[in-house]
Amino acid sequence: MKQQTVIIGIAGGSASGKTSLAKQLYDYFQGNHKVKIVKQDDYYKDQSHLSYEKRVETNYDHPLAFDTDLLVEQLQKLKNGERIEKPIYDYTLHTRSQKTEVIEGRDIIILEGIFVLAEQRVRELCDILIYVDTDSDIRFIRRLKRDMEERGRSLDSICSQYLETVRPMHEQFIEPSKKFAHLIIPEGGHNQVAVDLLITKMKSIIDEKEKS
Amino acid sequence: MKQQTVIIGIAGGSASGKTSLAKQLYDYFQGNHKVKIVKQDDYYKDQSHLSYEKRVETNYDHPLAFDTDLLVEQLQKLKNGERIEKPIYDYTLHTRSQKTEVIEGRDIIILEGIFVLAEQRVRELCDILIYVDTDSDIRFIRRLKRDMEERGRSLDSICSQYLETVRPMHEQFIEPSKKFAHLIIPEGGHNQVAVDLLITKMKSIIDEKEKS
Repeated sequence: MKQQTVIIGIAGGSASGKTSLAKQLYDYFQGNHKVKIVKQDDYYKDQSHLSYEKRVETNYDHPLAFDTDLLVEQLQKLKNGERIEKPIYDYTLHTRSQKTEVIEGRDIIILEGIFVLAEQRVRELCDILIYVDTDSDIRFIRRLKRDMEERGRSLDSICSQYLETVRPMHEQFIEPSKKFAHLIIPEGGHNQVAVDLLITKMKSIIDEKEKS
Repeated sequence: MKQQTVIIGIAGGSASGKTSLAKQLYDYFQGNHKVKIVKQDDYYKDQSHLSYEKRVETNYDHPLAFDTDLLVEQLQKLKNGERIEKPIYDYTLHTRSQKTEVIEGRDIIILEGIFVLAEQRVRELCDILIYVDTDSDIRFIRRLKRDMEERGRSLDSICSQYLETVRPMHEQFIEPSKKFAHLIIPEGGHNQVAVDLLITKMKSIIDEKEKS
């Protein structure tokens, strides 16, 4: 009997290192097409019925900004080895793009996003639940640098966004979801011992599937 | 070239589940003699020069209760594949026993104890640093049951010991050592996903050593 797809869920606060962890796991297996990353951010709700001005007002750090029904439906399909048409989000227009990405069934799906552990229906579909834990000051400093250097935003705007949405949403939804983790990984992608441990497990999953 | 012995350090508070985690990892490989547990508790200081009354007064939850020099020396030997004569502690007489246990070089040493991450010289010898994280109320309830049922101690004596030594030493030395962990494992041996992940890594270490 063919084993189900294994889903590795990676949650954690903004700038915790979860994307870097997901990328390192993915990069290690790149080329063999057995592993795929799915980002929760791809499932931001379609806002095409709203004006641009309204779209900008959305709190993107709140669980309600995500189309969790669609994510759950598509994860379930992936788990059964079926193909999906994953939405693609257009960050310029702040709504779902017309394009989609076809993802075939894989051995391992790495699901990465701030609310992966916070949403019960999502975490119940994951086989390994990881929380990347990085101190809040370090996470803020990373966001600050990234938003100033890459996005040219002002110090004032970065601080208000952090204090008004990022931080309260973190305290309300993300931090409490840590208790559902099987593994808490300090510093995420910067933690090579943890990266190595997860890669070893992924290799073993792929080997098992090849044998069966 | 023969690879060095891998040391997996497992720390965490009293009744956190670290002993159960160490035991499950060990039991999985039992019989193949490639894995061995070393408990930090075996390295309680020799107190043969003290009267029994004085020995009982020792704070066994303080780092100074341990002969860390000897532990570091013996871990270094194990890491180099040398044999050691590990001390054995006599909990009835509250001092080091006359007996020792010979441990030959192994592929993997599981080092388990409350201060494994707190002692810099010890953690520097470990390849994988694990902190077993369990809420303090759950840990207290486990101690309470164990001390009443297995050791027949009174509620008063259990509470005073917890409040006077176990808890302050935890806050001062153990909890702050979490920041050195590569992996934080909620609930320790009760967390089967984490147990499986570590066993997979240990299998892979043993396989690598057999090939080399």
